[in-house]
Amino acid sequence: MALVVQKYGGTSVGTVEKIRNVARRVAKTFDDGNDVVVIVSAMAGETNRLVALADEMCEFPSEREYDVLVSTGEQVTIALLSMCLQSMGYNAKSYLGSQIPVMTDSAHSRARIKSIDDKKVREDLKNGTIIIVAGFQGIDDDGNVTTLGRGGSDTSAVAVAAALKADVCEIYTDVDGVYTTDPRMVPEARKIEKISYEEMLEMASLGAKVLQIRSVEFAKKYNVVVHVRSTFNDKPGTLVMKEDQEMETVLVSGIAYNKDEAKISIFGVPDQPGIAAQIFSPLSEANITVDMIIQNVSQDGKTDMTFTVLKTDCKKALKIVEDVMGKIGASGVKSNENISKISIIGVGMRSHSGIAQTMFETLAKEGINIEMISTSEIKVSCIIDAKYTELAVRVLHEAFGLDKAAVEDEG
Amino acid sequence: MALVVQKYGGTSVGTVEKIRNVARRVAKTFDDGNDVVVIVSAMAGETNRLVALADEMCEFPSEREYDVLVSTGEQVTIALLSMCLQSMGYNAKSYLGSQIPVMTDSAHSRARIKSIDDKKVREDLKNGTIIIVAGFQGIDDDGNVTTLGRGGSDTSAVAVAAALKADVCEIYTDVDGVYTTDPRMVPEARKIEKISYEEMLEMASLGAKVLQIRSVEFAKKYNVVVHVRSTFNDKPGTLVMKEDQEMETVLVSGIAYNKDEAKISIFGVPDQPGIAAQIFSPLSEANITVDMIIQNVSQDGKTDMTFTVLKTDCKKALKIVEDVMGKIGASGVKSNENISKISIIGVGMRSHSGIAQTMFETLAKEGINIEMISTSEIKVSCIIDAKYTELAVRVLHEAFGLDKAAVEDEG
Repeated sequence: MALVVQKYGGTSVGTVEKIRNVARRVAKTFDDGNDVVVIVSAMAGETNRLVALADEMCEFPSEREYDVLVSTGEQVTIALLSMCLQSMGYNAKSYLGSQIPVMTDSAHSRARIKSIDDKKVREDLKNGTIIIVAGFQGIDDDGNVTTLGRGGSDTSAVAVAAALKADVCEIYTDVDGVYTTDPRMVPEARKIEKISYEEMLEMASLGAKVLQIRSVEFAKKYNVVVHVRSTFNDKPGTLVMKEDQEMETVLVSGIAYNKDEAKISIFGVPDQPGIAAQIFSPLSEANITVDMIIQNVSQDGKTDMTFTVLKTDCKKALKIVEDVMGKIGASGVKSNENISKISIIGVGMRSHSGIAQTMFETLAKEGINIEMISTSEIKVSCIIDAKYTELAVRVLHEAFGLDKAAVEDEG
Repeated sequence: MALVVQKYGGTSVGTVEKIRNVARRVAKTFDDGNDVVVIVSAMAGETNRLVALADEMCEFPSEREYDVLVSTGEQVTIALLSMCLQSMGYNAKSYLGSQIPVMTDSAHSRARIKSIDDKKVREDLKNGTIIIVAGFQGIDDDGNVTTLGRGGSDTSAVAVAAALKADVCEIYTDVDGVYTTDPRMVPEARKIEKISYEEMLEMASLGAKVLQIRSVEFAKKYNVVVHVRSTFNDKPGTLVMKEDQEMETVLVSGIAYNKDEAKISIFGVPDQPGIAAQIFSPLSEANITVDMIIQNVSQDGKTDMTFTVLKTDCKKALKIVEDVMGKIGASGVKSNENISKISIIGVGMRSHSGIAQTMFETLAKEGINIEMISTSEIKVSCIIDAKYTELAVRVLHEAFGLDKAAVEDEG
C-alpha cells in the first residue's frame, strides 16, 4: 500500500462530467489499495471569470482581496469532487488551504508555502477517507487567505506530498508527459521517461509549460518523485526525480524554445567600471527581469551591450535605457522583438564535451545566425532570428538523436 | 458617531455596477462619521448557479460539501466590495465567517450561530477601517464551513450587530420597507413606520418575505433595532423594534396571505383519547410540518379532523393519512390544495376586543366562506377558498383602516 498524491489541473476538472472522470480515476487508485490525497485546481475558465470581475471592479485591485476572490475557484472544485466520490460510495472530505492549514508567507498572489500540518489529513487517511485539497491557496500567520500564483496548484501538490512523505506525486494534465521538445512543432518528439529536477527546471523556465517552476524546486528540495501524466489515458508519463547514472548517459534530454523575449542593444558604451550597474539598476528597480547579457570586447574604450527582457517589458525597458544613455554617454539604442531563444538541456553535458560545438555547427549548416549565446552547467541557449525557430528546433532535435526513430535504432 | 451595521442582499450586489452603488452608500455612511460594518450576500443568481452545479453532480450532495460550495458566493462579493471601497480611497477589509470567526453548530445548510468574536473587527474599526463580512456562513467547532440556510445573511447581519452592540442594523433590499400588505395586490398598501418583533415574526412566517424569520428572532432576543430599507433610494424604511405604546394603539398592523398550504380532512374518526397522536406522529416522523388543526364536535362518538400542510408535502401527507385511516377506523380522507390563508396581525389585539369579529363580518359581507380559523395573541388567521384571496385582502385592508387614504383622514 502506497500513499499517492494526485493533482488535477483546470482542464481535467473543467466540467461536471470531467470531474466525474477524475473521481473514477481517484476511486480506482483507492481501490487498488492506496491512500489517496487529491489536489485540484479551479474548473477551467473559472479563474479567468473571477479575474475579469476584479478587472471590471477597479484598475488595481488589492492583492489581499484578490486572493479572497480567486481562491473561491478551487473551493468549488473540492466540494464537487468530494460530493461525487461520496455519491459513488467512498468516504471523501474536502480541505481548504486554511483548514489543513497550508501556512504561507504574506506575499499575496505569489505566496510561498512555509509549512503544512499533516495531522488532520493523516487521521482522516487512517479512517479510509479520500482527501480532496484546494490547490493554489493557503493562509498566512494572521489568517489572511493567500494564493501561490498561477499554476500554484502544482506547488500545493508537491508540498502536500512532501509533508505527507508520499510515495509519489502524480500531476495529471492534458498532455501525457514531458517531451523532448514541443510535439506540435516536431512530430518526432518523444515522451521522456525520466528527467532530473535540474533539467526539468531548465525545461520549465525555457517555455515547456508542463509544471510550474516552483513546484519542481519544491520537489527537488524535498526529493519528491513527481509523475507527470495524462488525465485522459492510463499510459505512464514522465518521472521527474533525482538525477541518476542512467540520465547522465544521455547527452541532451530536450530542446526548448522561447519566443517571449526581446533584445535591446546599447552602442558606444564607455568601457569603464560601474557602467553595467548604471544600466541595470534602474531596470531592476522597475521590476524588469533581464535574462541574457552580453558585452562585446572593447574597442577604443567603447563597447556594445546587448541583453534580453520579456517582450511585455520591452517598451518600458527601452524608455529607461534611453534615459540612462544620455547620462553615460552611449551613442545609440536599438531593440528587436523578432528573436527566439533555443536551448539544449541535459545533465549529460557535465561529463561530455563538444555538445555546444554540435549545436553551433548544426545551426550554421542551416544558415542560422547565432546572435547571442549563454551557457550553464546543463544547458546551452542561443538567440536566433524568430523566423528560424521551428527549423532550429527540428534540426537540433535530430542532431542530438532525440527523434523516435533514432531511439528505436539504438534499441 | 454611531456604529452602523448594513446588510445588502443579492439583488443589491447583483452586478459590478450595483456593487459600486453599494460602495458609494457605505462610503457615505462612513463619511457621515459612523463606524460601518457591512454584511453582503452572494451576487444575485450566483447561489443558484452553484446549487445547479451540485445538482448536476449528484442527487443527494453531502451537506458538508454543499456548504463548502455555496459559501463561495458571498466570498466573491466581499472581495469585490472591499476592492471597490479601496479604489475609492477608503480602508476596507473583508472577513469570511471563519476569519471573524462566526461560530455555529454543525447543522450544515441550516446552522445556528452560537457566538461571534468581535475582537478583530473592533480593532479594525478603531483604525478607521470599513469591515465587509460574508453573510450566510460560519464555522463549527471542528473548523468545518457551515451555512445558515437561504436568507441567512439577514441573520448574519443581526447577529453581528448584536455582537458589536451596534446602534442599528440596516437591511437593504429591493423593497423600501414592510408594507401593511402586498402592494402588488393592494395599491393602497402603506409602508409601516415601526413594527414590533412579534408582529414582524407573524408577517414573515405568513408570507411577507422581507426578512428571514430567524433574523427577527435574533433581533428580538438581543434587542437589535432593524431598519428595513431600499438600496435604491434614501427614504426611511421600516423600523423593526421592541413593542412600544404607540404600536398598541394600532388595532391591526398588517394583512398577510399565504397560498402555500393545502388542507386535508379525515372523516368519521372515532372520538377517543390518543387518536390525534396516531394521526400526527407519523406525519411528524416524516418531517411534515402541520400548521392549523381543527377538530369538530363529536357526533355519535365520531368526529372530523382537518389540518393544513405545505402544498409540497400534501401528497406525502395524504399517503401517510390513508395508511393510518385503516388502523383507526376512519371513514374517509379528502384533500384540497385550492385554499389560501388570510391573517390579520397586530399587537393592538391584546388590548382591544372585537377584532376577530370585524374580520369575520367583513369576509361574510363579501360572501367569502371561512373554512378554518386559528388565533394567537396577536393574529387571527382564516382559511378561505383561494380564488377569494385578493378580494379578502383588499376588503380587510380597508376595514381595518390600513389604506393610505384612511391614514390621511386621521391625520
